[in-house]
Amino acid sequence: PHTPDLERAMDSVVLMKNMSELAVDLAYGAVLFDSEALAEEVLNLEAEVDALQSRFEAWTLRAAGRVEDPVSLRGLVHLARSTEVISDAALEISEGVLRGIASHPVIAEAVSESDEVLVRERIAAGGDLDGTTLGEAMVKTETGMRVIAVRRAGGERTADERDDWVVSPGPNTELRAENVLLAKGPRTGAERLREACGETSSAQ
Amino acid sequence: PHTPDLERAMDSVVLMKNMSELAVDLAYGAVLFDSEALAEEVLNLEAEVDALQSRFEAWTLRAAGRVEDPVSLRGLVHLARSTEVISDAALEISEGVLRGIASHPVIAEAVSESDEVLVRERIAAGGDLDGTTLGEAMVKTETGMRVIAVRRAGGERTADERDDWVVSPGPNTELRAENVLLAKGPRTGAERLREACGETSSAQ
Repeated sequence: PHTPDLERAMDSVVLMKNMSELAVDLAYGAVLFDSEALAEEVLNLEAEVDALQSRFEAWTLRAAGRVEDPVSLRGLVHLARSTEVISDAALEISEGVLRGIASHPVIAEAVSESDEVLVRERIAAGGDLDGTTLGEAMVKTETGMRVIAVRRAGGERTADERDDWVVSPGPNTELRAENVLLAKGPRTGAERLREACGETSSAQ
Repeated sequence: PHTPDLERAMDSVVLMKNMSELAVDLAYGAVLFDSEALAEEVLNLEAEVDALQSRFEAWTLRAAGRVEDPVSLRGLVHLARSTEVISDAALEISEGVLRGIASHPVIAEAVSESDEVLVRERIAAGGDLDGTTLGEAMVKTETGMRVIAVRRAGGERTADERDDWVVSPGPNTELRAENVLLAKGPRTGAERLREACGETSSAQ
């Protein structure tokens, strides 16, 4: 039987998982690079995961009213709960950074200079990336940085976006002033990305 | 001060994180594709994460004996604990699959035919992939499948490998009979990968 409510519930929980994994990456970045900026983004993501959780519950309960054996949805409910645990772990790590206990010079020293970095940058009005797309601007080729997520300014979304976060941005992902980019790559790439964003100083 | 013990502790915890994220991916795959094979691999990974945890503890305690302020390592200990929570969540999800509660036809029905699949395949002796490398065999180009992890048969490792798992395999990753591949891609690619592995029937 076709159960669109159930499909939407599944989509929500898979998105929760992707966002939770992004949160873990950012939380680790916050520790490794002693970055309160990244820790703050974990808090922003957590709000989004909570919103998805509510949406998931609504779709699952609607689906339960329509499938033959509602108890069969128990596995799905467990899946969502286990996923929440993951984003909670990310939150815990980043709260450690914000309270100043998780990061420490001694940890930063253990991060090799040659390692990939994870940075947050905000696109400035009139910056090279303002009003373009990831593909048009050839961000990966031009800067060496892989953009792993884009956060829109509060409430501003494009027509096909339901959320403030674009977790797996593609070449058609639009970029505008005030958007926040999370990107991974070599240290030199981080410099180039900052210039392309048109920020005089890092958003960190 | 140069603290190689601390670097090793950090390396272990980052590897724990990568393995935990792989475990979450596999656990989700187990649910979405109703695959006990993937659930079993989560149990295998968990054993590896436990081994890393022990290694992490040893290096951290050694480092604590050498740094000026041992208590400064508290953040690192918290980080490892939060990471363990993530692999525990993956374990919980896959135990649900093995007990038959987390997966259900109704969930499998909600997975679209066009979605990417996640499969486990074992390389057969004399199969096309036996005795080659990921790059040589051009697995991605030839099959359309992205290999996200390779599990070696018990105890068998190449010179530069410390673990039974290769979590981010590259073009030089060697492939041999009895190795288990975890791979993502389109359904048609999964068929082609199975043929290249030389299995007559899937390892699932």
